[in-house]
Amino acid sequence: MTPDKQPETPTDARVAGAAAHWGFRFIANGTDYGDFIATLARITRWADWCREWGVTAAHYEQLAEAADDAGQAATAAGAWQRAALAWHWGKFVFTDDPVQQRAAHERTVACFRRAAAALTPPAELVHVPYGNHALAAYLRVPPGEAPGEAKAPAVIMVPGLDSTKEELQANAEFFLARGLATLAIDGPGQGEAEYELPIEPRYEKVATAAVDYLCGRDEIEATRIGLFGVSLGGYYAARAAAYEPRLQAVVALAGPYRLDLGWDELPPQTRATFQARSGAKTADEARAKAAELTLEEAAGHIATPLLIVGGGRDTIIPAHHQQRLASRLPAAELLIYPDGSHGVTNRAYESRSRMADWLTARLVP
Amino acid sequence: MTPDKQPETPTDARVAGAAAHWGFRFIANGTDYGDFIATLARITRWADWCREWGVTAAHYEQLAEAADDAGQAATAAGAWQRAALAWHWGKFVFTDDPVQQRAAHERTVACFRRAAAALTPPAELVHVPYGNHALAAYLRVPPGEAPGEAKAPAVIMVPGLDSTKEELQANAEFFLARGLATLAIDGPGQGEAEYELPIEPRYEKVATAAVDYLCGRDEIEATRIGLFGVSLGGYYAARAAAYEPRLQAVVALAGPYRLDLGWDELPPQTRATFQARSGAKTADEARAKAAELTLEEAAGHIATPLLIVGGGRDTIIPAHHQQRLASRLPAAELLIYPDGSHGVTNRAYESRSRMADWLTARLVP
Repeated sequence: MTPDKQPETPTDARVAGAAAHWGFRFIANGTDYGDFIATLARITRWADWCREWGVTAAHYEQLAEAADDAGQAATAAGAWQRAALAWHWGKFVFTDDPVQQRAAHERTVACFRRAAAALTPPAELVHVPYGNHALAAYLRVPPGEAPGEAKAPAVIMVPGLDSTKEELQANAEFFLARGLATLAIDGPGQGEAEYELPIEPRYEKVATAAVDYLCGRDEIEATRIGLFGVSLGGYYAARAAAYEPRLQAVVALAGPYRLDLGWDELPPQTRATFQARSGAKTADEARAKAAELTLEEAAGHIATPLLIVGGGRDTIIPAHHQQRLASRLPAAELLIYPDGSHGVTNRAYESRSRMADWLTARLVP
Repeated sequence: MTPDKQPETPTDARVAGAAAHWGFRFIANGTDYGDFIATLARITRWADWCREWGVTAAHYEQLAEAADDAGQAATAAGAWQRAALAWHWGKFVFTDDPVQQRAAHERTVACFRRAAAALTPPAELVHVPYGNHALAAYLRVPPGEAPGEAKAPAVIMVPGLDSTKEELQANAEFFLARGLATLAIDGPGQGEAEYELPIEPRYEKVATAAVDYLCGRDEIEATRIGLFGVSLGGYYAARAAAYEPRLQAVVALAGPYRLDLGWDELPPQTRATFQARSGAKTADEARAKAAELTLEEAAGHIATPLLIVGGGRDTIIPAHHQQRLASRLPAAELLIYPDGSHGVTNRAYESRSRMADWLTARLVP
C-alpha cells in the first residue's frame, strides 16, 4: 500500500455524488459500462478523480495508436473517441487542480480530433466567427441522396455548464440518422472557449453566430435550422428561441428557468464549476452571476416552436424549472419523464428518439 | 401491497447472481443501462425475472408501434430491437416456467423480425438447410464498393448455451464495420431451434451446413469464410475448426474445453438451462450429457488458424479451459484479458475490436 493510498473509510462524498448524478450520462454518451465500473472502483478520493479517468483514457490512447499503426481504422476511431470521453469525464467538473484539469481537457480535444474524420458521417472541425473570437465546433452532414443536389436541414447542438461539443456526439447520432446535419459548438465558458471567454448569459449571441455560419455552408438549407440544448444548454436554447428568429424549432432539455433557484442544492462540483467558468472570484460572486441566467424577461419573447423536456427525478435541475417555463408559454410543448434523471439519460434511447423526431417533423420537408 | 409482493428480506440469490454474472453482457449487447437498472430494481424474486423483463420489453413494443404508425422508421427499428433484447433476457435462462419462457422467446423473435429490415445494413432472415430441418439465421452483408462486383468475406456467428442470433447483433456490428458479412445462426438447442432440436455436441455439422449455405449466396466469397463462437459457442467454434476445413479462420471466445469441468460451480440457472436444452430428464443425466461436450479428441484435428480468447475473471467458464485448449495447439493464439468477465463483455469494445481485426486480417484480401 503506497503512502497516498491509506484506507479512508468512507468513499469521498463527492465521488459517490458524481457516480450517482452522472453514471447514466457517462454511459449514454458513449463510455463503456465496463470502463465506468472499473474506473469508479479505483477512485475513493475526489482528488484522484481526474487522474484515474486519465488512466482509462491513456489505455484507449494506446489501443488507438496501435490500431492506427496497424491500419485498423475502425478500431482506432472508436478508441480515440473513448479516450476523448474518458479525459472529458476526468476534467468536466474537476476545478480543484486547474493545471491537471486543463491538461485533461486538451487531451479530450486532441483525441477527438483524431477520431473525427473516421466517424460516419465524418465530423469536420470548423470555427464559427464570434466577435473577435472563433468558436470551435464539429459539423456533421448526413450523406445526401444525390451529391450536390439536396441541402440538409441542420440542428445546432449546445452543451451545458460542463459538457462540450465532443460529449454531444452520441446524441448527434439520433439527428444524423434522421437526415439532420449537426453543428455541436463550444460557446463561451464551454470546452475550447472556456479558458478565454466566461459564461455568457445572453447566449443568443452564440446562436446567431452559429446560424450565420450555417447560412454560409453550401450543404445546409438555411431556412431549416433548429437548435437543441441540454442542461444549462437548455437555458441557452430558450434564450435562442426568444431572440434568434431564424430558428425554426428548438428543444430545451433539462434547462433551468433561473439558475439561482435551488443554487444551494446543486452538487458542490457544479457550483465550483460555475464559479470557474463564469469568472467569479468568490462563491458569493458566483451566486450573483447565477442570478443573471434567468428567463424571466426572455420567456415573453419566445414565438418559435419549443419543446421543453425534463426528468421528474432530476436532482440537479428539478422539473419545476421546465414547468415554470412552460406555464409562461401556452404554445410550447412540455414533456416530463416521471422517472427521468438529469438530461433523461436513464431513458436515453426513448427521450433522444422523441426529441429527434420532433425536430425532424419541423425541419424536414 | 398485493399478496405476492410481501417483503422478502434478502434478494433471491439467483437474482443477485444474474445481475452479477450478466450485467456487462446485457449492456454490451445493446440494452440501455437505464433499462438494466430500472428492471433489476423491480425484481427481488427469481419468479418475477421473466415477467419484469417483459414489462420493459412491452414498453418498447408500444414505442415501436407508435413510431411505426407515425412513420418514424429509425425510432421504430431501435425500439423493436430493444424490445427483442428485453424479452430475450427474460427468457434466456428462465426454465422454471416453460410456458412463460416460450412466450417470451416467441416475442423476441417477432420483435427482432420487425427491426431487421431497417437495420444498417439490413438483416435478412434466412433458413439454412440442416438434415430434415431448416435453421433460422440472420444474414447481413456490408454495402459493397460497386454493386455486383466485389463479393464479401463472411463470418458465421455461433451463440452459446443461452444466447441466440438476435443477441449477437451488437457484436456483429464490429465485423460489418470492417467489411465482413455476418451469418448469425440458431443451431440445435438455440433460439428458434431449441424446442425441436437438443444440443448437438458435434456442432461441426451446423458449421458445415452454414458454410454450404453461404457458398450458395452470390454476395459471399466462398473461399473467405470464418467463424466466431461465444461461451458454449466457443466450444462449438473449436469443433468447427477441427472438422470443417473450408473455414479460413476461427475465433473461440470464452469456450469450455470440457463442459463437465467445474460443472458444480456453474450458476444454477445455467445448469438448469443445459438440462432443458440438452433434453436431459434429470440433473444427473444433464451432467452426463455435459461430459459429451469435450475437445479431448477434436483438439488433435485443429489445423485452421484459431484465436482462443478468455477472461481472467470469468467465473462461468474459467480461463483454465482456454489455456488447456491452447496448450494442445502450439500454432493457435491465446488471448486472456486478466480482468475480463465471461465473454469479456466488461471490455467489449477492446476485445470485440481485436477479434474482428484478427478475422479481418485473415479474411479480407
